[in-house]
Amino acid sequence: MTVDQTVTRRGRAARVAELAARKTADQRPVRPGMVGGRYQPLTQPEVERIHHTVLDLMEQVGFADAIPSMVALVTAKGGRVNERGRLCYPRALVEDIVAGAQRSFVMPGFLPEHDMEVGGSRVHTGTGGAAPTVLDFHTGHYRDSQLLDVYDLARLVDTLDNIHYFWRPVVARDTQTTLDLDLNTAYACLAGTSKHIGVSYVNGTNCRAALDLFAMASGGESKWRARPFGSISCCHVVPPLRFAVESCEALEAAARGGMCITLLSAAQAGATAPAALAGTIVQAVAETLAGLVFVNLIDPLCRANLGTWPFVSDLRTGAMTAGSPELALVVSGCAQMARFYDLPGSVAAGMTDSKLPDAQSGAEKAYTLALAANAGSTLIMESAGMHASLLGASYESYVIDNDILGAVQRTVRGIEVTDETLSFEVIKSVVHGEGHFLGEAQTIERMKTDYVYPGVGDRQTTAAWAEQGAQDVRERARTQVRQTLATHYPEHLDPALDAKIREHFNILLPRAAMRPSDRW
Amino acid sequence: MTVDQTVTRRGRAARVAELAARKTADQRPVRPGMVGGRYQPLTQPEVERIHHTVLDLMEQVGFADAIPSMVALVTAKGGRVNERGRLCYPRALVEDIVAGAQRSFVMPGFLPEHDMEVGGSRVHTGTGGAAPTVLDFHTGHYRDSQLLDVYDLARLVDTLDNIHYFWRPVVARDTQTTLDLDLNTAYACLAGTSKHIGVSYVNGTNCRAALDLFAMASGGESKWRARPFGSISCCHVVPPLRFAVESCEALEAAARGGMCITLLSAAQAGATAPAALAGTIVQAVAETLAGLVFVNLIDPLCRANLGTWPFVSDLRTGAMTAGSPELALVVSGCAQMARFYDLPGSVAAGMTDSKLPDAQSGAEKAYTLALAANAGSTLIMESAGMHASLLGASYESYVIDNDILGAVQRTVRGIEVTDETLSFEVIKSVVHGEGHFLGEAQTIERMKTDYVYPGVGDRQTTAAWAEQGAQDVRERARTQVRQTLATHYPEHLDPALDAKIREHFNILLPRAAMRPSDRW
Repeated sequence: MTVDQTVTRRGRAARVAELAARKTADQRPVRPGMVGGRYQPLTQPEVERIHHTVLDLMEQVGFADAIPSMVALVTAKGGRVNERGRLCYPRALVEDIVAGAQRSFVMPGFLPEHDMEVGGSRVHTGTGGAAPTVLDFHTGHYRDSQLLDVYDLARLVDTLDNIHYFWRPVVARDTQTTLDLDLNTAYACLAGTSKHIGVSYVNGTNCRAALDLFAMASGGESKWRARPFGSISCCHVVPPLRFAVESCEALEAAARGGMCITLLSAAQAGATAPAALAGTIVQAVAETLAGLVFVNLIDPLCRANLGTWPFVSDLRTGAMTAGSPELALVVSGCAQMARFYDLPGSVAAGMTDSKLPDAQSGAEKAYTLALAANAGSTLIMESAGMHASLLGASYESYVIDNDILGAVQRTVRGIEVTDETLSFEVIKSVVHGEGHFLGEAQTIERMKTDYVYPGVGDRQTTAAWAEQGAQDVRERARTQVRQTLATHYPEHLDPALDAKIREHFNILLPRAAMRPSDRW
Repeated sequence: MTVDQTVTRRGRAARVAELAARKTADQRPVRPGMVGGRYQPLTQPEVERIHHTVLDLMEQVGFADAIPSMVALVTAKGGRVNERGRLCYPRALVEDIVAGAQRSFVMPGFLPEHDMEVGGSRVHTGTGGAAPTVLDFHTGHYRDSQLLDVYDLARLVDTLDNIHYFWRPVVARDTQTTLDLDLNTAYACLAGTSKHIGVSYVNGTNCRAALDLFAMASGGESKWRARPFGSISCCHVVPPLRFAVESCEALEAAARGGMCITLLSAAQAGATAPAALAGTIVQAVAETLAGLVFVNLIDPLCRANLGTWPFVSDLRTGAMTAGSPELALVVSGCAQMARFYDLPGSVAAGMTDSKLPDAQSGAEKAYTLALAANAGSTLIMESAGMHASLLGASYESYVIDNDILGAVQRTVRGIEVTDETLSFEVIKSVVHGEGHFLGEAQTIERMKTDYVYPGVGDRQTTAAWAEQGAQDVRERARTQVRQTLATHYPEHLDPALDAKIREHFNILLPRAAMRPSDRW
């Protein structure tokens, strides 16, 4: 078949539209788990120096405030509590745990279509955060975040292809007890999306209560254990090198209950970690490895990732910055360390210090994401929606950031080099023919498999854009938020099951809020 | 000296302010020429496959429309004109030229403080473009660009540290002849900034006229040749693989006149280059190498860079996209090819399809820049100010993008790994001490050397930001644009010299526009 038979100029628009629509999962230009690793901020010797400093720190300085069960498990394997009461880890123990830990596993969605195969350099991007405020969609002012925000943001993310999982982004400040907070946050996430969900739990009791809820939602504990669709996001340390007692109890409960685990070290370079970026990486790796030892001694089959989430200080004020280039570097370095251990890791990237969806937020989100993802981060948390140095979330930004994530994932996919893509024959044929590639068979084919198209990103002519109201991307995103939240009420939780959950747990999200109404 | 003697909490703010101010060039966290290369989208075998396909293309397919002087030079060195009239390059000739070309040279500023040492993986970022419109600063609507815009944008860029050189970004559409256009563009650039400037010339005559102007501005031809502060940005090819006759004549004039040279191939993947990204890289490299052969046969000491500037089509419409992830990939791949040849190269990155400075523009600029810079691009053109898929420029964006460029350059600088930065002793001391790094000597020291601070980027608390008017970054940038353009009228051109230039050339920029007035 010649090029002219394949496609004519006249019929191209129709054919192009048809082809763009006819995409199987395999044909989509980006999908969860594109393989990163082409950006390596550290050389191999540098990686090894960091590793050895990590081992020195764990062995010689150790950790304060280990809980009794942790002390018992670690000392039984050769660890010791030193003269300052700090739990120290022999190198061999750490190395054995790293060697034996699960390197690759599924983090299931509530529905299997959202399962993630984490491990290797496969990159997944999702939400995160514990913001106390949201940029109110209707008023445009920041206000306290509520349980309904958790549910609505879950619904929104449920529709956004490039956000692969949903960590609760905001704190439900309208709950009264920590148990109500943790349980209702878990419920609101679960009710809002069938993607994998992540929640923090204040203590072991709350985590066990959530495990009961999840087991019920799964149809029994064994079903939950087979497909644990929920993660604990556990700050088991208060940097530098001190365990957080209640969080460690929650961690233990999660590990015993089969929950997926993010071992989260959230230090701030220049404040709770060294200002020197290499030192911040060292400390983050040491802190997450200490958590890894604990959960693997509880259950060597546990699905845990090294949550190296260092943030950075603005050293003029000591305040946290979430969108700085130094952050891009430390999280990319941490991602590279997880690759060195060949263990799943997570980092926080895609955040901004800006309070609004503006050029600053777009830039800070994009360069931190582009580097973290190309460094091969297994799980990039906080990758959408977050503003104000993590203190706020914006509805519009989830939609805008979904575009950014699609683009970033396309860069992770990289450049395919084959005889066909090198295009010697295509170039020769075009040069000797009509001089243009638009009608080439290769062009039509590549269009559907190789090119990512933005959802709310504008690529119109200036004239067409002006005619349609000269909107910025925030305005276009607002339209999509409104349309989605007015209509998308997921139904993956069977009503009978939901009734049973409400019977057993103090669910505060009103049923009425979970149906279309005039609130959007 | 102990930590407590070095710094007390009380005096910290004052000391911090003092230290931040006391920065020599060496101490600045970023400077022109940070060394990139840690992002490598291509493997070494892939780089070599591209190289061999390039040589095949140059040898077997060749180029249409070579000008007589080019044919003479190339055929004298073993090239041949094939049966289709295309100029073909033997592999040995291309390899010899690559081996002999200048690998590292100075691209001087008009003032020596702006000299750039290009070569290796040293990254420089500057402007570029030939936009026919600007987003009017006062009305907020797009309008035709004018000569005054060239001058005002040059003045603005003159003050922005992270924009290292000034290529004319917009077309002076208020000029009547191409000679007036080219000469006045050159003059407006030169008058507006003492940084290295770049201009396109329609033909050899115009380029020779500009050379005369530059020689006069330098104080004589030999002084110009010693410090050629101007570049030609020369689209010597009309892709695919066809020379642009008049531009090749301009190129020849530039090479003979000692001008710095960007050998510019500006194809569009899916339209004038293959839709397969590897093929687009192949074609861009072949086209720029053909230019390199020509200028090196004219002058083996010429200061030329491989201007691989592929753009990308939105294959739904055939329109150009300048902010797509596919663009980030092809330009990074091109940067890696220039590294393979160990020759200075340039790419276009930091553009956007968005019409406004918004979250889309921030993101598209940032991820394309972050990857192109970390790939080790010698010169990143179009890296500030450009919108609307290169069809428009925005004053505000130069200021916003200067922040983005500072951040990106910080990521290029990377993570320093030394015994000191690994921070074992610092961590140990803090852990055993007061538990906080903010007062550590290391922190104070690193603050001034390692951390980049944004100019218009907001890092305040939400409350402080709201109190100050809840501005987005565009509004803050507008303030800076207005302040700069109302006051910054560079005076590096001596008035007597300027008068002489005006005597000899038809300078259209009124002297009155070059002094403070109420127009800003």
